[in-house]
Amino acid sequence: MRITAVYERSVPLDSAIANAYIDFRTMTASVVAVVTDVVRDGEPIIGYGFNSNGRYGAGGLLRERFIPRLLQAAPEDLVNGGGDNFDPFKVWDILMRGEKPGGHGERSVAVGVIDMAMWDIVAKVANKPLYRLLAEQIGDGSPDERVFVYAAGGYYAPGKDLSQLQEEMRQYLGMGYTHVKMKIGGVSLDEDLRRIDAVLTVVGDSSRLAVDANGRFGWDEALRYAEALKPYRLFWYEEAGDPLDYALQAALSEVYPHPMATGENLFSHQDARNLLRYGGMRPATDYLQFDCALSYGLVEYLRTLEQLGRFGWSSRRVIPHGGHQMSLNIAAGLHLGGNESYPGVFQPFGGFSDHLAVDNGYVRLPNAPGIGFEEKHALYDLLRTLTP
Amino acid sequence: MRITAVYERSVPLDSAIANAYIDFRTMTASVVAVVTDVVRDGEPIIGYGFNSNGRYGAGGLLRERFIPRLLQAAPEDLVNGGGDNFDPFKVWDILMRGEKPGGHGERSVAVGVIDMAMWDIVAKVANKPLYRLLAEQIGDGSPDERVFVYAAGGYYAPGKDLSQLQEEMRQYLGMGYTHVKMKIGGVSLDEDLRRIDAVLTVVGDSSRLAVDANGRFGWDEALRYAEALKPYRLFWYEEAGDPLDYALQAALSEVYPHPMATGENLFSHQDARNLLRYGGMRPATDYLQFDCALSYGLVEYLRTLEQLGRFGWSSRRVIPHGGHQMSLNIAAGLHLGGNESYPGVFQPFGGFSDHLAVDNGYVRLPNAPGIGFEEKHALYDLLRTLTP
Repeated sequence: MRITAVYERSVPLDSAIANAYIDFRTMTASVVAVVTDVVRDGEPIIGYGFNSNGRYGAGGLLRERFIPRLLQAAPEDLVNGGGDNFDPFKVWDILMRGEKPGGHGERSVAVGVIDMAMWDIVAKVANKPLYRLLAEQIGDGSPDERVFVYAAGGYYAPGKDLSQLQEEMRQYLGMGYTHVKMKIGGVSLDEDLRRIDAVLTVVGDSSRLAVDANGRFGWDEALRYAEALKPYRLFWYEEAGDPLDYALQAALSEVYPHPMATGENLFSHQDARNLLRYGGMRPATDYLQFDCALSYGLVEYLRTLEQLGRFGWSSRRVIPHGGHQMSLNIAAGLHLGGNESYPGVFQPFGGFSDHLAVDNGYVRLPNAPGIGFEEKHALYDLLRTLTP
Repeated sequence: MRITAVYERSVPLDSAIANAYIDFRTMTASVVAVVTDVVRDGEPIIGYGFNSNGRYGAGGLLRERFIPRLLQAAPEDLVNGGGDNFDPFKVWDILMRGEKPGGHGERSVAVGVIDMAMWDIVAKVANKPLYRLLAEQIGDGSPDERVFVYAAGGYYAPGKDLSQLQEEMRQYLGMGYTHVKMKIGGVSLDEDLRRIDAVLTVVGDSSRLAVDANGRFGWDEALRYAEALKPYRLFWYEEAGDPLDYALQAALSEVYPHPMATGENLFSHQDARNLLRYGGMRPATDYLQFDCALSYGLVEYLRTLEQLGRFGWSSRRVIPHGGHQMSLNIAAGLHLGGNESYPGVFQPFGGFSDHLAVDNGYVRLPNAPGIGFEEKHALYDLLRTLTP
């Protein structure tokens, strides 16, 4: 049982949208295909992985360091003790050989992409959907059969006015979502409040609307927004300040009594632990959004979840960033609180199986072995072009 | 005044040595040459940059994101208000366009390498050594004319015994160094203590020997080493635990009264600020080792130094990791406490001007305009091959 080839490519995330920090028109994602010599139905089993939005593809790092380490490893160092499947934990150790501690960014994307492909392989070899395999091998044996998802959108775009923003949110509700998210911080507070008011005329219940500043605010502005948002009692107020400014997050907890959410720009269990140690976040109120595809994959995510337990957090307070099927499987298999979803953007990566509609804010899991990419045709059409 | 071309290459750091974490035989560094249309003595002014050891070259990131942004920038967005020199602060903003906050690793190397080349250019255009330019434009106008340097070595190597370790240290003292550093954590505590004892028979005064664990220890081992090292009263005990485990650093401060040092694996002012906020480090006792070449360059380093001031630290407590001439210039121009030096390893990057010997623990600064690479021939011979 061995890996016979690894293919990677950077593809554009062609979205004419912007949040408070970046213009997605220049954003890329890495996609990889890890080919094995395990034959199923006459074809070799292939695992696929990609990184979610917000960070760039890691093609250079994959080619320079991580794919060579994987291909140069002895086959027996990549499989489990029984020799009947690959072992993502051993693969992780191989990938991280010669890497110093600290500095968790970029390489965390490269490793996350390969880790995703390895879990896809492991579940395909075991011939079951990944969420079931995770529940059996790591969780309590009993996966969730549906996962809460919310529609992340409300981006700034050139010429986009309030009625277009409302129409976007109306579409999400029409698709079956109950909760939606919009960006703030790209315009003035007054204008953002008008945007929020406009969206609430569509969404109705303010506890179903989250707002996301993408880490743009300094202390004054973060606190000013907190004051202005307080009366709305929103679903959550996300990433107000710099993701590493734990003191700001803690200060917000002092003045903002409603849910806050952050974590998508922390890429290791050490960074996550620092947020829990110093960020003043409240296990009964707040949400954590770590994204395995940007942060060394599921192997590292399990270490992060272990830290959560130590700090008194339930896994149900975790609703990952990224809107991809890997996190959907983790959410169902390990009882997270839900998953982000980008019904309108970041295609073909955003969204889940083609034939599984969102129903009253929940989505069901694919039945295909692996992560389920084969049930999302636009994505699978791209992934299958990776191999010759 | 414009940039006409940027060349980059990854070169091996061919050292058959290892610290507690990595084997340097597979380590690379990026070198860049930024070519301008400013002509001096009939030749275009070229700035050079490279990254220091411990992190890999950033060739993929340079080619995918950072060099294209630099070359696509409008020339007027890269120069100062008077139009008579390039502006590294404006260049930095161009490089970081479209980058989200958090995740400070890898890209911090790519930006650091280009930033170094830009400061080399700025000082060459101004026709003065960089340390003088920094003193005049950013510091107090009066640079240090010599900088404390210590010899970092004492690596583990296959077959290296105590007598070879002693001979290595004897050589450093013979070169004019007064203070030396050796690795710990790659073998048992007992064996490390034997290595320390052996080195002290050569160095004599234990306050002239630092030890470096390269972040390898968990809490138990870090505290066990602290207890065992305490009687030695060493120069410092460096990077005991994971660089992001600020709580461990703070715990060590409770039990270890002598100097400690860390920071080489923190790559942004936000990470540095967290160390100052949470790491329990003592401004009158400890040392900070942030390395600009790995952490977004001098532009970001100035933000880090500003944070130090806010937390009551003198710049004299900063002795950067990396052993390169960029930090040497910063140390002299902005009154840092000194600089690391690798007299035996990481050639041709380690060390300073060929004709400036270390004298009683101090080295003088080069007179050449720029950073001074032209006065270090083995390095300059490599750098000049970058351009056609």
